[in-house]
Amino acid sequence: MSAVPPAPTTPAPTTPAATTPAAATSAAELEALLAAAHGAARPLAALRPAERARLLDAVADALDAAADELVPIAQAETHLAEGRLRGELKRTTFQLRLFGELLRDGGYLDARIDHADPEWPMGAPRPDLRRVRVPVGPVLVFAASNFPFAFSVAGGDTASALAAGCPVLLKAHSGHLELSRRTGAVVAEALAEAGAPEGTFAVVAGTAAGAAALRDPRIAAGAFTGSIPGGRALFDIASSRPDPIPFYGELGSNNPVFVTEAAAASRGGEIARGFVGSFTLGAGQFCTKPGTLVVPAGSVVVEALREAALPPAAALLNERIQKGYAEVLEGFAANPRLDVLVQGPSPLADPPSPTLLVATAADMLAEPHALQAECFGPTAVVVTYDDEAQLVTLAETFEGQLTATIHGTDTCDVASLVEVLSRKAGRVLWNEWPTGVSVTYAQQHGGPYPATTAAGTTSVGTAAIERFVRPVAYQGFPQHLLPEALREDNPLGVPRLVDGVREH
Amino acid sequence: MSAVPPAPTTPAPTTPAATTPAAATSAAELEALLAAAHGAARPLAALRPAERARLLDAVADALDAAADELVPIAQAETHLAEGRLRGELKRTTFQLRLFGELLRDGGYLDARIDHADPEWPMGAPRPDLRRVRVPVGPVLVFAASNFPFAFSVAGGDTASALAAGCPVLLKAHSGHLELSRRTGAVVAEALAEAGAPEGTFAVVAGTAAGAAALRDPRIAAGAFTGSIPGGRALFDIASSRPDPIPFYGELGSNNPVFVTEAAAASRGGEIARGFVGSFTLGAGQFCTKPGTLVVPAGSVVVEALREAALPPAAALLNERIQKGYAEVLEGFAANPRLDVLVQGPSPLADPPSPTLLVATAADMLAEPHALQAECFGPTAVVVTYDDEAQLVTLAETFEGQLTATIHGTDTCDVASLVEVLSRKAGRVLWNEWPTGVSVTYAQQHGGPYPATTAAGTTSVGTAAIERFVRPVAYQGFPQHLLPEALREDNPLGVPRLVDGVREH
Repeated sequence: MSAVPPAPTTPAPTTPAATTPAAATSAAELEALLAAAHGAARPLAALRPAERARLLDAVADALDAAADELVPIAQAETHLAEGRLRGELKRTTFQLRLFGELLRDGGYLDARIDHADPEWPMGAPRPDLRRVRVPVGPVLVFAASNFPFAFSVAGGDTASALAAGCPVLLKAHSGHLELSRRTGAVVAEALAEAGAPEGTFAVVAGTAAGAAALRDPRIAAGAFTGSIPGGRALFDIASSRPDPIPFYGELGSNNPVFVTEAAAASRGGEIARGFVGSFTLGAGQFCTKPGTLVVPAGSVVVEALREAALPPAAALLNERIQKGYAEVLEGFAANPRLDVLVQGPSPLADPPSPTLLVATAADMLAEPHALQAECFGPTAVVVTYDDEAQLVTLAETFEGQLTATIHGTDTCDVASLVEVLSRKAGRVLWNEWPTGVSVTYAQQHGGPYPATTAAGTTSVGTAAIERFVRPVAYQGFPQHLLPEALREDNPLGVPRLVDGVREH
Repeated sequence: MSAVPPAPTTPAPTTPAATTPAAATSAAELEALLAAAHGAARPLAALRPAERARLLDAVADALDAAADELVPIAQAETHLAEGRLRGELKRTTFQLRLFGELLRDGGYLDARIDHADPEWPMGAPRPDLRRVRVPVGPVLVFAASNFPFAFSVAGGDTASALAAGCPVLLKAHSGHLELSRRTGAVVAEALAEAGAPEGTFAVVAGTAAGAAALRDPRIAAGAFTGSIPGGRALFDIASSRPDPIPFYGELGSNNPVFVTEAAAASRGGEIARGFVGSFTLGAGQFCTKPGTLVVPAGSVVVEALREAALPPAAALLNERIQKGYAEVLEGFAANPRLDVLVQGPSPLADPPSPTLLVATAADMLAEPHALQAECFGPTAVVVTYDDEAQLVTLAETFEGQLTATIHGTDTCDVASLVEVLSRKAGRVLWNEWPTGVSVTYAQQHGGPYPATTAAGTTSVGTAAIERFVRPVAYQGFPQHLLPEALREDNPLGVPRLVDGVREH
């Protein structure tokens, strides 16, 4: 890339004064919090699912009531706009209540009953076996920088872990410590008032405290949303413990978008506008930001992008992210395979204007790793192809992704492309944009490494609860000693698989 | 322990001549097999579940037909009795067919459909989202020593991976290489005749080939049944890859049994007989062998065990296992906390007679790690308690377990003990014995580390398939591009969660 201006020599605008950062959690404080979480595990697990639902509802109500206090703190600490933050808080409390619904339904318990069967054709009588999911124990959640509510203190990881019946220790993100402290206080107070066991939830701060907690035998699982290097370092800690624990890290994703010739021809301008809106949303700081747009060379899309009115410069979340963004953009600038397609007046300043780069399919095939480098901020790469058959070849060059998108028409022959992208990504989109991750029953926010460290799971949607439970089977048990979900008369009314047949 | 006789100075009996071991797989051979497995992944995944069921049935039929050829080879290589091996083969083919049933049902796909909903209360419209499980890709299975059929070439890991739609590379166990080669040939031929993609299944041999395959980017998951050190070494390889992959290791378990005072008083002799039968089954070479029996001091159980007629000496699977067994037993012998309760005439010989050791609850509390050491062979430890309240305290000293068992009566107050054991183990039994792991819908063969490296999963039972799938969500897709399980008219007739409601 040749035309990115040098970084401005004038001082960057001063970051709005944030509240004083909370002190890092000391070793003694951490020990007390770990002991409390450990102590809460048993009583929290002993609550009926519907009783835990009540706790989640109480947290949601308290957060809604605290919006006017919390949102301004979030604005000051993250530079995000009030409307966006209010929407994010609404999403967060909706999410807590949706997990409450899941608990009242009970299907997540995956309760199974096999009655004893002397004629079981395995060659030996089948004993009475009953299986249900139980909480794994205290969970350590690492909050994200970019969603101070929805992927942070009371976000999806916390909601799903609490729903599962696991105490949560929340490692605050350094980018919004005061918000974390205040949100944490609201959550803890709501839980206490609703009767949750002491130690059900607490916030810790500081990198050292986070790493120490992850090594502690009382922590049974980790969850994380952040960068590839940060997530990998924590995954390595979790995996190399004397007793390894699962670490559910959502790391990084390029989220490529593939545009067919027919789609480019029929609605190229609309695709260009949609792409600009998506890659610059939240100043490009979404984990699902489309980092690559693959389009026909010389198509309307390319021309529309070249002429596009990019949004104005917007401050990134914090100085560290601004610095990291500038470094990646400078790396792109030094790469002769990348040229500027269009950019705003101050691409390397703080705040930065958006930048769109361009390369050919041959360039991408030659250096996929460099051209697909993670770039957290308002920059994306447009890749032009001459032959639509290259879409599949290009798709194969990508590592694991959270999302991959196709823009096509009903007559496009994209079956092979769908097949490749289904192997690469956790979510595949058709004629939509990947930013915005709805919280639903069928959502999948995950994907093969390095998108996540656990491709079989999701961190958004109701299935996220499955990360924090494990199955236990009871063999030959008398009714009165069984968990309620497994008793013959089904007092909780949960759906069950009985002798291989679904009953509910 | 004081009274274990020294190892005999006469040479150990010669192992029956096994067939010539197969040569280790060369690097070039491995490369070809990995390429073939990689090539098979896409066509195998593209088969409808019911088509894969037909493949599993074909393998089961071929193995049943080959019983008279395979069982004698297994006898020669493992010293296991013909009856046991024929039963194990029957279990193996039953298991393959049960996974076939699972595929025809389709519930394992966990298909979910959320229709678009502009009023979704999250604060933003819900897109059309549809989620289904897809195969992860080629799986590397490490066969076990102790179940040459059911946890080996065509055992549970292979069956569940093939059912999921994943090609399998099977690392043969060195203890039964000729059987592995022959069984592998039967499986591969049956798959080929039934029309499976080339490369769907192959056997590799040699430690180096196994490790190299586990490091290969074409392998998407590993599965293993074996020892703690062996499994941990492989887990570490899988977790430290540039792209870490899940490694489902079933490692080691002590499988403690806790006997209440009332149970000991009411049926002490029966419990003693059951325990001897269970810990010596298959010469003590079951991963679910009860290694510890906790009983009231001075109870009928202790007296009955002291007088018990132990089964005769039986050859272990192979010389390496015999050597390892003798080392652990000598370690026990050197521990002053352990005494011999009863043992046969040749405890350290090859073949070894069974040994029962005894210690007090105080001894176990003082040195839980040493007294709970993994011992693969016909030795177990009886722990005597003076106060039934010690059952919970002793239970807390155990690490993660595959199983934990209580022998009690209906009037015993064991709720706390059940709670502790549910945290420690994947399967909790009441008045039964842990050896024998039925293949059913509700079975759970797993448990917290070191019982397994993935406590959220099972390696036995229909839920084992969940290890080898991952979810993919499709957003905004036209019907004709969706996987069949997600199309509106449900052509496969699979059970689904539609807008949060179960439909089938």
